[in-house]
Amino acid sequence: MTQTRLDLARIRQARHVVDPVFLNTPLYRCEALEPVLGCAVSIKLETANPVRSFKGRGTELVASLLAGSAAPAAVCASAGNLGQALAWSGRTRGIDITVVAPRRAARVKLDRIRSLGARLELVDGDHEVARERAAAIARHEGIRLVEDSLDIETCEGAATIGLELVRSTPTFDTVLIALGGGALATGVGHVVRALAPGMEVVCVQPHGAPAMTLSWHARRVITTDSADTIADGVAGRRPIPAVLDDLLLVADDAVLVQEASITAGMRLLLDHAGLVVEPSAALGIAAILEDRDRFAGRHIVTIVCGSNIDMDAYRRLVGTSGVRI
Amino acid sequence: MTQTRLDLARIRQARHVVDPVFLNTPLYRCEALEPVLGCAVSIKLETANPVRSFKGRGTELVASLLAGSAAPAAVCASAGNLGQALAWSGRTRGIDITVVAPRRAARVKLDRIRSLGARLELVDGDHEVARERAAAIARHEGIRLVEDSLDIETCEGAATIGLELVRSTPTFDTVLIALGGGALATGVGHVVRALAPGMEVVCVQPHGAPAMTLSWHARRVITTDSADTIADGVAGRRPIPAVLDDLLLVADDAVLVQEASITAGMRLLLDHAGLVVEPSAALGIAAILEDRDRFAGRHIVTIVCGSNIDMDAYRRLVGTSGVRI
Repeated sequence: MTQTRLDLARIRQARHVVDPVFLNTPLYRCEALEPVLGCAVSIKLETANPVRSFKGRGTELVASLLAGSAAPAAVCASAGNLGQALAWSGRTRGIDITVVAPRRAARVKLDRIRSLGARLELVDGDHEVARERAAAIARHEGIRLVEDSLDIETCEGAATIGLELVRSTPTFDTVLIALGGGALATGVGHVVRALAPGMEVVCVQPHGAPAMTLSWHARRVITTDSADTIADGVAGRRPIPAVLDDLLLVADDAVLVQEASITAGMRLLLDHAGLVVEPSAALGIAAILEDRDRFAGRHIVTIVCGSNIDMDAYRRLVGTSGVRI
Repeated sequence: MTQTRLDLARIRQARHVVDPVFLNTPLYRCEALEPVLGCAVSIKLETANPVRSFKGRGTELVASLLAGSAAPAAVCASAGNLGQALAWSGRTRGIDITVVAPRRAARVKLDRIRSLGARLELVDGDHEVARERAAAIARHEGIRLVEDSLDIETCEGAATIGLELVRSTPTFDTVLIALGGGALATGVGHVVRALAPGMEVVCVQPHGAPAMTLSWHARRVITTDSADTIADGVAGRRPIPAVLDDLLLVADDAVLVQEASITAGMRLLLDHAGLVVEPSAALGIAAILEDRDRFAGRHIVTIVCGSNIDMDAYRRLVGTSGVRI
């Protein structure tokens, strides 16, 4: 394949830099899900760590590079997971961290960012507004701007998940990856393309925030005026051109799913796998629910990428009685 | 210390026999729990595997020993977790498995045992009745009886968790271990005593099923007439003398907790850690809730040993609104 921005040697090296608490996460077949989904399903669980999402893999790389500088500091825009992970990695290394988040972000994520000692600035508006504000802070203060999916560390950190997937036995037919800014999809996709070329790479995004998927199909950047989805972790509107270029090289497909399917996926993961997940982490299951025929009889692995969700919202979404679908 | 029945060299060797899907489970600090609990809390998570409990570590040892024999077969009594794990390990190796369970065991556990291809026999009565029936089947059919906590493989399999705890940095002041038959407590306790003697080993059992704790304090076997607790995984009435002897050598304390504290622990793990757990897995948190002063300022690790619970029962116990304690 034509080269993406990612580099396999650097990704392998990243495993020696990232705190082991984020590595070698559980990967296991979840047979209780299979009668409902009609295919073999394995789960790569990225929630059982101090920040409850995969983002620590990337922020560990960012922070380790910054740690050597004088008065190290960084700022990022985040719906919450990147900010929490950057705050964690920064605290460990004495790095001053600022996180810019939409005011309506999940309270649990904002509380954790504060608890981890980061400076939190809330903005009115969505993730794109937060990105602009973070960039302004970086320019004004002369500090590092961490841009999710654009910054190679965020992609190559996520790519370490790919190394763990491709060494698994048995192998998988398809990996389903939540698609937002693209760090997770390009990271994992790059490794799968290079080391397990027979494995299909399918990205999944909500209909309510479809910009990157529309761009992938059009092979050019398409922005949207708004994003409206419960999956706050993937709610971008303006794909980054360099990330789209990478995604075009590594993804076999990108599909959109309905909000109701995301909620149904969350319920299934609770009822049959005992897993609390945030909406973004249920996108893979949602994709299977919407197209059982496509995945029938195959062995699918889906990355359960985060579990940061306000419990009130969770209870509202997933329901309080014994829901069966 | 005087010798327990366990052997450190065999426990180390067990790591090469047990399927890796059960090993090197997540171990991480969970700071969001700490303001409520008043101490540093780390979690050793034994739920993210194909059988959703730690029991696979032991059944893998049992099954690997049986696999070499002609027409291998085994029977066990189980409230569900051991049976499910034995069924899983047996299926992998072509071993004929029978599980005897109380009729009122958690439906999800019984369903999974059947799905994994084991023969399931239900008995009226509690775990002790199931133990008697399993022993009768073993005698009648001339097959291996797997006795949880008595059979050394079940203890040494659980003990591999101890190896993973003691190599952690930073070290822990106290490990809180759910106490039922004693496999988990003697297994982990043996390794901690041998390799991290400064770490306190505290066992936790429900007031409603206190036989082993009463026995530990009395230094002789005390049986009870009944067991009444939501923590079905630890609801025994007749401690095994050899296991009590081991426990006397490795435990620093054994405490009893109220049912309400177990439920509160389950809620805390859901609300602040995003973890669905069965009642037995919340015993450690319950112990902290009942004696915050004892653990104040210490670094506690608790083993979240299983997540097999009927979701209807879970919703009933943990509540449906945003509960705060």
